[in-house]
Amino acid sequence: MTKVSIHVTLKEGVLDPQGKAIENSLNTLGYDGVHDVRVGKLIEMFIDHDDVEAQVKVMCDKLLANPVIENFTYEIEEGVAQ
Amino acid sequence: MTKVSIHVTLKEGVLDPQGKAIENSLNTLGYDGVHDVRVGKLIEMFIDHDDVEAQVKVMCDKLLANPVIENFTYEIEEGVAQ
Repeated sequence: MTKVSIHVTLKEGVLDPQGKAIENSLNTLGYDGVHDVRVGKLIEMFIDHDDVEAQVKVMCDKLLANPVIENFTYEIEEGVAQ
Repeated sequence: MTKVSIHVTLKEGVLDPQGKAIENSLNTLGYDGVHDVRVGKLIEMFIDHDDVEAQVKVMCDKLLANPVIENFTYEIEEGVAQ
């Protein structure tokens, strides 16, 4: 089994209402040094396959990330016992 | 300005319906080698403060992560021009 971490983030220029809400809350709570908050998804999974990287790319393209508004990056942790 | 990435993930043992839904969809789409999908939040921000690490810890404890069911980790990228 291979452990994979996938980061899905909004593309530059795409409005992030969730990030804005968090930024406003933090500023209201007194953390006014906080700017440009952006919120994305962190998807972790274990994959049992001979070509994990190819599998991850296809899954991200097809299901996990919306190519119109989102980017994705991934980290493959070799051979993590599960 | 310092760029900070915060990863908020569910604690071990906490049920993850969103992760389960993604896992089932992937299996249904034919990616049956995928197991134990867990979904978390990736929060990126810029912080203008002299003690960024202390600031991040307090914000995570107070607002960004629910200490009962969530863990958080963070990465501080020194001096990213913004």
